[in-house]
Amino acid sequence: MKTLSILGSTGSIGTQTLEIVRKFPENFKVVGLSCNSNIELLKKQIEEFKPKIVGVFDEAKADELKVEIPVHKGMDGLLKVAVLSEANIVVNSLVGSIGVLPTVKAIENLKNVALANKEALVTAGEVVMKKLEFHKTTLLPIDSEHSAILQCLQGEKIEDVNKITITCSGGAFKHKTKEELGGVKAADALQHPTWNMGAKITIDCATLMNKGFEVIEAHWLYGLDYSKIDVVIHPQSVIHSLVEFKDKSVIAQLGMPDMKIPIQYALNYPERLGNDNLSKLNLIDKKELTFREPDLERFPCLAMAYDAGIKGGSLPAVMNAANEVAVKYFLQDKIKFLDIPRLIIEMMDGHRLVKNPSLDEILEVDKKVKEDTERIIEEGK
Amino acid sequence: MKTLSILGSTGSIGTQTLEIVRKFPENFKVVGLSCNSNIELLKKQIEEFKPKIVGVFDEAKADELKVEIPVHKGMDGLLKVAVLSEANIVVNSLVGSIGVLPTVKAIENLKNVALANKEALVTAGEVVMKKLEFHKTTLLPIDSEHSAILQCLQGEKIEDVNKITITCSGGAFKHKTKEELGGVKAADALQHPTWNMGAKITIDCATLMNKGFEVIEAHWLYGLDYSKIDVVIHPQSVIHSLVEFKDKSVIAQLGMPDMKIPIQYALNYPERLGNDNLSKLNLIDKKELTFREPDLERFPCLAMAYDAGIKGGSLPAVMNAANEVAVKYFLQDKIKFLDIPRLIIEMMDGHRLVKNPSLDEILEVDKKVKEDTERIIEEGK
Repeated sequence: MKTLSILGSTGSIGTQTLEIVRKFPENFKVVGLSCNSNIELLKKQIEEFKPKIVGVFDEAKADELKVEIPVHKGMDGLLKVAVLSEANIVVNSLVGSIGVLPTVKAIENLKNVALANKEALVTAGEVVMKKLEFHKTTLLPIDSEHSAILQCLQGEKIEDVNKITITCSGGAFKHKTKEELGGVKAADALQHPTWNMGAKITIDCATLMNKGFEVIEAHWLYGLDYSKIDVVIHPQSVIHSLVEFKDKSVIAQLGMPDMKIPIQYALNYPERLGNDNLSKLNLIDKKELTFREPDLERFPCLAMAYDAGIKGGSLPAVMNAANEVAVKYFLQDKIKFLDIPRLIIEMMDGHRLVKNPSLDEILEVDKKVKEDTERIIEEGK
Repeated sequence: MKTLSILGSTGSIGTQTLEIVRKFPENFKVVGLSCNSNIELLKKQIEEFKPKIVGVFDEAKADELKVEIPVHKGMDGLLKVAVLSEANIVVNSLVGSIGVLPTVKAIENLKNVALANKEALVTAGEVVMKKLEFHKTTLLPIDSEHSAILQCLQGEKIEDVNKITITCSGGAFKHKTKEELGGVKAADALQHPTWNMGAKITIDCATLMNKGFEVIEAHWLYGLDYSKIDVVIHPQSVIHSLVEFKDKSVIAQLGMPDMKIPIQYALNYPERLGNDNLSKLNLIDKKELTFREPDLERFPCLAMAYDAGIKGGSLPAVMNAANEVAVKYFLQDKIKFLDIPRLIIEMMDGHRLVKNPSLDEILEVDKKVKEDTERIIEEGK
């Protein structure tokens, strides 16, 4: 029996994680839940899954929630759920760099982490990897691409890897010209064709920043140099990623675009669980699988992520912080789509890189860059 | 250092195996070679690779070969090479059921077998698998599809497999109508577009009998029921086969259509060897990957193979023997393309199935059916 604390249980990954728990009550038990502000759904989850404690990030909402179990609030609430002694796995499906501290604290408390929060590794990859090594716990990706790579590496040696190729649907605006991209709105992106995802990641997919994050995550998760990490546009999202070995043999993982497959794999790793609720891939139903190079001119965020990853230090945290703020404003229709990369570049260019930053330094950079980006946006209006 | 005896060293797989040996002189050494009749090439191979003995199946040709080392002839020559005490791996790239006995004798002499000779497992799968189990030796497939499946299964459990999907280029006549198939010639097929292969297997690809063989081989190699083995037409031959697990995750192996990749994998299994002579797959160069169901009406051999495999016993040996003779005559333009399945069905229908046949019974059926098929063809002319 694995016991789970789920950070972000009312979001897309959180609710899908609970579907897996519901399907396998003998394998998984929920001991902690947390949400940002959706206390109506959290209350239902408490009734069904009977956790020991919950956390609500929004303090006013936390005060409104009347339940029999302890309700913790704010960042402290998230951290209480992350370090809960009854939990052996912490599912981190928070959105944004807010996920860094709970990830680190969970590891320090010897939890295994199932990580959907990309920003934790992007922002603090080196710190997180060192903590994992020191505390001998594991971090498993909840992410179709990194789960694919992990599956392709089963029974293989990382030193035999020539290259990994992360596939990318191309995002909601893949067919837009540079001119058209000037006028697109958040609402256009939020009808993303393939995956069932939250709002922030949908915009990150549309800018290709999400793919840039995945490149940086892959670097940390698999210890691979950036020169060994490729991205290819594959609009059908059937092949979730590929690994080329030194004998030129390529192993790939494929499947329907259903996040429950990587969630379940991470929760029960390395054992697979039979699940007839998940849908089968039928290649014959797919008209064709196509592949092309990403267009870095229309979508500069991917190139920026390689740049930030290769330079390293505090730079990925800067990129992420600027992106978080820019996406927040874009979702509110307060800035334009092409302002997102412009703001990120501005913040990255103005940053004085800190090498091997500590966790505190990273969190400080994150806070500062977010404030600066907000100020620039507000001033520019 | 692995020491190899290569049966069929002058054929397509044999010469490609020698390319791998040439590339890795520290890993592999040739101790035995055999050919059917191409003694000119064999002589060059003897000079370069310095085996201890050779075998020449064609007895007259064997007598012509003047070299310093022992030359054995006929089936006895093949068997001497197969059981050579200095060899720890026997590469069997013979064509046809002539490969059965050398496979069995190699296993009985505790050799590991790298098997390109499909007909050995098709004809005598049960006997071969029992011998492998008893003598605790291994059999590794030299075949892009089964090598793909083996690679997909690394680090996985066979009981977690829902289904394997063997891909198929469709063969040289994939675009021909049933009427057009009536008039095609062997020469048309021998310009096979993707793989560098011998003549017999090229015709087997064109009839889809080769894919049927692979279904039966997969049944024996991986112990899977026929209901778990699918075939899909994939004209680009980029994905070499796929394995679906019980959590609906699919692992696939991909690569350029180069037999040296599976040959090298089989020879050095489970360790991969870096080889820059092999070409990299570039998905972006591939316009598209497509998939469709095989057309069993135009290509009935595949359905016949499922039927033979499921009924089992001596029936696959009958199917194989009739096919071998029919293909031989088709290659000589003495029968038509559609006579191949017609003759096989006739021989299968007229056969009284022997359950759990012994090796002797299989070899007897093989001989008898070949004679009968020849007689029917000769009488029908």
